[in-house]
Amino acid sequence: MSEWSVPESEVMDVAGDLLDEGADAMLATVVDVRGSAYRRPGAKMVVTPGEGGVGAITAGCLEDEVRRLARGVLDTGDARVETYDLMTDDDVWGMGVGCNGVLDVLLEPLDDSFRRAVDAYAAGDDTVVYTVIASDDDRLAVGDRAYADALDGFPPDVAAALEDRDPGGSSHAATVDTDRGTATVFVDVIDAPADFVVVGTGHDARPVVDLAARMDFSVTVAGFRGAKSKAERFPAADAVVSTSPRSLTDDVDIDADTVVVVMTHNYVDDRLAVEALLDTDAPYVGLMGPDDRFQEMLGDFADEDVTFTDAQLDRVYTPVGLDLGGGAPEQVALSIVAEALAVHNDRTGGSLRRIDGHIHDRPAADD
Amino acid sequence: MSEWSVPESEVMDVAGDLLDEGADAMLATVVDVRGSAYRRPGAKMVVTPGEGGVGAITAGCLEDEVRRLARGVLDTGDARVETYDLMTDDDVWGMGVGCNGVLDVLLEPLDDSFRRAVDAYAAGDDTVVYTVIASDDDRLAVGDRAYADALDGFPPDVAAALEDRDPGGSSHAATVDTDRGTATVFVDVIDAPADFVVVGTGHDARPVVDLAARMDFSVTVAGFRGAKSKAERFPAADAVVSTSPRSLTDDVDIDADTVVVVMTHNYVDDRLAVEALLDTDAPYVGLMGPDDRFQEMLGDFADEDVTFTDAQLDRVYTPVGLDLGGGAPEQVALSIVAEALAVHNDRTGGSLRRIDGHIHDRPAADD
Repeated sequence: MSEWSVPESEVMDVAGDLLDEGADAMLATVVDVRGSAYRRPGAKMVVTPGEGGVGAITAGCLEDEVRRLARGVLDTGDARVETYDLMTDDDVWGMGVGCNGVLDVLLEPLDDSFRRAVDAYAAGDDTVVYTVIASDDDRLAVGDRAYADALDGFPPDVAAALEDRDPGGSSHAATVDTDRGTATVFVDVIDAPADFVVVGTGHDARPVVDLAARMDFSVTVAGFRGAKSKAERFPAADAVVSTSPRSLTDDVDIDADTVVVVMTHNYVDDRLAVEALLDTDAPYVGLMGPDDRFQEMLGDFADEDVTFTDAQLDRVYTPVGLDLGGGAPEQVALSIVAEALAVHNDRTGGSLRRIDGHIHDRPAADD
Repeated sequence: MSEWSVPESEVMDVAGDLLDEGADAMLATVVDVRGSAYRRPGAKMVVTPGEGGVGAITAGCLEDEVRRLARGVLDTGDARVETYDLMTDDDVWGMGVGCNGVLDVLLEPLDDSFRRAVDAYAAGDDTVVYTVIASDDDRLAVGDRAYADALDGFPPDVAAALEDRDPGGSSHAATVDTDRGTATVFVDVIDAPADFVVVGTGHDARPVVDLAARMDFSVTVAGFRGAKSKAERFPAADAVVSTSPRSLTDDVDIDADTVVVVMTHNYVDDRLAVEALLDTDAPYVGLMGPDDRFQEMLGDFADEDVTFTDAQLDRVYTPVGLDLGGGAPEQVALSIVAEALAVHNDRTGGSLRRIDGHIHDRPAADD
């Protein structure tokens, strides 16, 4: 077990397994970053002494160093924060990434105080975990932990101060001042994997499922007419559901955090699926096939007096995928999963360099 | 062995292995498509009777059917073309993909006539393979084959007619009229995998290497100061090269078909690598790190009187990757490989639906 760059979900899975086994393991979490760094606060790795670990807290600069500390952390049983200054003397180097930057990393024994985070993640629930990372308040020690809906593990005034804060969308350190002193609490916003639903069980679905799972989506394959029998085709899927076009949205949970790709290769099945999906909150309904086919669908909807708002139709992405130009099945899958990830994160998929403008003037390409 | 949706390179690899073993195997190639289909002409699968096959010629509609024909094709030893009409009675369905469309598939014993294509692909060379798929010229039989630079396997007038044609960029069927009759020849343009060079051997390089290999790139990892010792980190790489920033472009072949990602996490190494790479024809030099860091590089280039044209600088993509919004290592890798694939194919990476315009008017997002 020594894989650094793994999907986030694998780090949580391994943490859960180690808790189940009661294994000796250390949890390392990036709690603060100054300067540019490869990973953000909340990045985690799990280390078992003498064996290795999973997860990346940097681009590979600190993992070996942190691993060496695991035995000591477990022997004392105490949580502590290590600060790593990866800046070089030369300011220029300080503008780098990965090995350049100052990182604070919380090191702690992986124990049942982290169990609720693991369980929530596995159950598909978002959680916010509050962990003390510095304190001169003698009631609070580094490593003390509570959860958003159960802050009573903390003294009432601390709990009240934390309750009044909006945790926001990303993990960060917060300062809590009380009459008894000041504590710094790491507010770890842990979002469960978003759901990625693939409607269709054709051979072209497998690379989409595989890639989506690697991107930390929780993947459900929904098929019509006996999909269950094809479950072995999709080892990376979290679930394979056999349903029908008309009961799709009853049998599969679909909400505003769910992206869906419709690829049954059957026009009527696809049309019924799209019709049902547009009545959900799914922000992304990717539809395999040429645009003409969707235009035909729109005609059929009109003939049947099925109407949708522009906002609903705007959630249909067809032809599906980003414009990458590749035609091999894996390349088609890449283009689909990249588009779904972008829409999930409210991005557009173009090159990052174009978005920041700058460098030198360029025409805005062909859009 | 029964994987349909595999990288193209795996189909060619398996074909090579089966030729080496002298195994009984059938090669199936899509030679014509009417209507919309998932795969284009040139898509291939290799089938060994009783065992299975690799490769996709449709989205899974025909593979089982074609596999059933393998024994017969091998028993007769004759190549033949099968036409599959996957249109339904309803015209609307004919607008579908995958299982809707009319496909001509060339079925033939996999034999040494295909050896040169396999060898060229493995060696990184592009090839054009000419195969007769219909003929009333009694000198030409279905399955007769010659290569672009050795057309003398065909009668001189046929060879001359083919020599005069530009094969173009994609596989297609061509008609050859001579005094002896008319033949249809499938012109199979088989491009060898493009090269994807990753400069850097950090842990964040592995998911980039893995994903690029799945996308049919031939991947070379170039590292400084003893990269060879890290070769086991990159099982998906075709080569791991230990070099130095100043000899990078001598030790690694880089041409107009090569995409490069620079991610050493060392400012000076990155700067020297970028400086060297801008003097090659690589159309894509992705550079990990924030834009400020590249601006600093530009300042250093200016201080050292190293000058580049706008066209050269336009090949630098930094911050690297498409704007997908993901921060996990696998998501960063997805964004990088997707951008490299797009640039390699002369695309911009935005959603396909925006490029065709249509559906209903949308603002052109934020670029």
